[in-house]
Amino acid sequence: MSRTPADLLRASRDALATVRTSAPLVQCITNSVVVNTTANALLALGAAPAMVDIPEEAGGFAAAASGLLVNLGTPGAEHRAAMRAAVAGATDAGTPWVLDPVAVGTLPVRTELAATLCAAGPDVVRGNASEILAVAGAGTGGRGVDATDDAESAAATAAALARRTGGVVAVSGPVDVITDGRDTVRVRNGHPHLTRMTGGGCALGAVIAAFAATGPDRLASTVAAVLTYTVAAELAADHANGPGSFAPAFLDALSTVDGAALESRAVLA
Amino acid sequence: MSRTPADLLRASRDALATVRTSAPLVQCITNSVVVNTTANALLALGAAPAMVDIPEEAGGFAAAASGLLVNLGTPGAEHRAAMRAAVAGATDAGTPWVLDPVAVGTLPVRTELAATLCAAGPDVVRGNASEILAVAGAGTGGRGVDATDDAESAAATAAALARRTGGVVAVSGPVDVITDGRDTVRVRNGHPHLTRMTGGGCALGAVIAAFAATGPDRLASTVAAVLTYTVAAELAADHANGPGSFAPAFLDALSTVDGAALESRAVLA
Amino acid sequence: MSRTPADLLRASRDALATVRTSAPLVQCITNSVVVNTTANALLALGAAPAMVDIPEEAGGFAAAASGLLVNLGTPGAEHRAAMRAAVAGATDAGTPWVLDPVAVGTLPVRTELAATLCAAGPDVVRGNASEILAVAGAGTGGRGVDATDDAESAAATAAALARRTGGVVAVSGPVDVITDGRDTVRVRNGHPHLTRMTGGGCALGAVIAAFAATGPDRLASTVAAVLTYTVAAELAADHANGPGSFAPAFLDALSTVDGAALESRAVLA
Repeated sequence: MSRTPADLLRASRDALATVRTSAPLVQCITNSVVVNTTANALLALGAAPAMVDIPEEAGGFAAAASGLLVNLGTPGAEHRAAMRAAVAGATDAGTPWVLDPVAVGTLPVRTELAATLCAAGPDVVRGNASEILAVAGAGTGGRGVDATDDAESAAATAAALARRTGGVVAVSGPVDVITDGRDTVRVRNGHPHLTRMTGGGCALGAVIAAFAATGPDRLASTVAAVLTYTVAAELAADHANGPGSFAPAFLDALSTVDGAALESRAVLA
Repeated sequence: MSRTPADLLRASRDALATVRTSAPLVQCITNSVVVNTTANALLALGAAPAMVDIPEEAGGFAAAASGLLVNLGTPGAEHRAAMRAAVAGATDAGTPWVLDPVAVGTLPVRTELAATLCAAGPDVVRGNASEILAVAGAGTGGRGVDATDDAESAAATAAALARRTGGVVAVSGPVDVITDGRDTVRVRNGHPHLTRMTGGGCALGAVIAAFAATGPDRLASTVAAVLTYTVAAELAADHANGPGSFAPAFLDALSTVDGAALESRAVLA
Repeated sequence: MSRTPADLLRASRDALATVRTSAPLVQCITNSVVVNTTANALLALGAAPAMVDIPEEAGGFAAAASGLLVNLGTPGAEHRAAMRAAVAGATDAGTPWVLDPVAVGTLPVRTELAATLCAAGPDVVRGNASEILAVAGAGTGGRGVDATDDAESAAATAAALARRTGGVVAVSGPVDVITDGRDTVRVRNGHPHLTRMTGGGCALGAVIAAFAATGPDRLASTVAAVLTYTVAAELAADHANGPGSFAPAFLDALSTVDGAALESRAVLA
């Protein structure tokens, strides 16, 4: 691998510090279920969320934002138009953007939309294994938002998808797989509570967009986002009695997680 | 009553165990206020939420889902079309579905929609007394989502409504009344904090849909859902300092409540 | 000033007591990010939230509600029509209403809508300094929901805006500035966690609408709302480890904050 785990850990510490000091403005067009959790995760991290999600405003805002998340979870007609406008605005302006193809595969509207948006070259595609396989045309999707495949099983497909988009693909699971089509990194941090908290995956897409604003190395910034997020989950789990109390503890942890915590807990390969 | 409280308690324990092991996939078309809480309640319980709520996708998904919730809280035009499509898909496929007629009575759009959907034969109608009276044509509704009548006052009307829909009607209140038009069961569990947490009633509708997937006895599955939910509320109240801390504690409790807790706390009649 | 701080503190205690006993029905047409938090804040306080937000229902409901909040955070087309209907209904019926011009300035749809709604004479306009300057035509807005100006810098502009609308303007910040164009009051309570919790500002708009239902003195009712809200934030901060645990603690505090707490903590000038 051209970047060693030690390189990536150092870059992650730097990226986290940059997020905290630069407060990147992250536009999110995301689903109704997780929009609050997503905004809170960004705020806790020190980023600035802006859910500018109507067609008339989304494109202009994307041109000025530090990063953009497009999440297909509840893709109503107005949101779909806003997504297209935002992606066009981001592309024109060079704003990094993240595509989260929630539950693509058999659901027709989002599956077609994901294909269109993928062709526009997202800087990062984030999903679970079923979603990544479906976006890549190699699977039929899970049942709704469930991951019915594990991340490792999608690693080769993810790498091929990354070569096609020209960006990075992040596959979420007990082990996260992140690839730019050349190098593939595995992050073995996290906690099962993340899967029992609505938005546990979706908010990560926004965090990836925040970190994408810290520099041009997309693989490194995505690894940094995933590492920060999953280490925060580990820190939070110590203060949780279940999935309900995990959620506020996770936001607390996102607000305090630092380079030292990454250093002591990272399991990168 | 053809089913004794002891029968219903035993069936509730079985249904809860089945939900935990089968992870029913519950489609929710619900209001923007409670959508996050609803998804989290299902996840905590061990079910799989899927908020597939656009017209182009809702019908096909409902045919494959384990259960469906249609909640009229914020019935925008696109949601209304999705609800009709989902109910049609559920009906064709035999997917059990729950109608929550939030704030019907004087508000024109949802009141007319509730009447239409009721005529389609929901497996369960869940609401507070004012809403059930209004759906049945025997009241004018409360003021918004308030219950201005208690559940007992709606018991006879609920039974008549159940005979009309051919399903079950669940009236929420300090005492919950659940009827299939022949047998009427009262659940005297719960905690006032549930009424101070947004979604305390609405998420129950989704939980009823999850339990409806466990078997064909609709009265028993609805009692099981209400009992599980209200016993979890009692467990959570011990860890809450108010309505804010109750919410995460309630999700924690939903994730751990088991047959033994139902056994020791159930007050069924 | 025609009302002394002591007068305003006494009026605040009375208004809070009235909210608790009268449970004002507050209609909210608000953004998707904060709608849950807003409903929970109202419930915790003892008010009754009703998110009646579709055009066909919003006007009639506003005529019967105790207060109305119109928040421009995610102004989709259907919401925009509902806002216009609700403001018309509120105006006809004399229902007090609050405008929260989220992120106005450069975003075209909401900026034009804010101007239109402002011309309809909101009882209260609440925003951060950037938003108030933008609504008044004296600034270009912040970047999204950030306040890039402090409240004091907007005090004179806010007073002029209040004279123009004939209502009250509340500028949120570390020090809150509340003015009816004649008297200007400063509330030096609150906690930084409020700015790290999504909806920390937006939910205040709904609370201001709840307090507006307690009597005709709009300056006094708005000061009472801001004071109650910010004192609750101080009480909550003692139970928080970060922005995540602050949120439930804040709802707990809103449910218990009372006249004695206002008396002992208020810093009014």
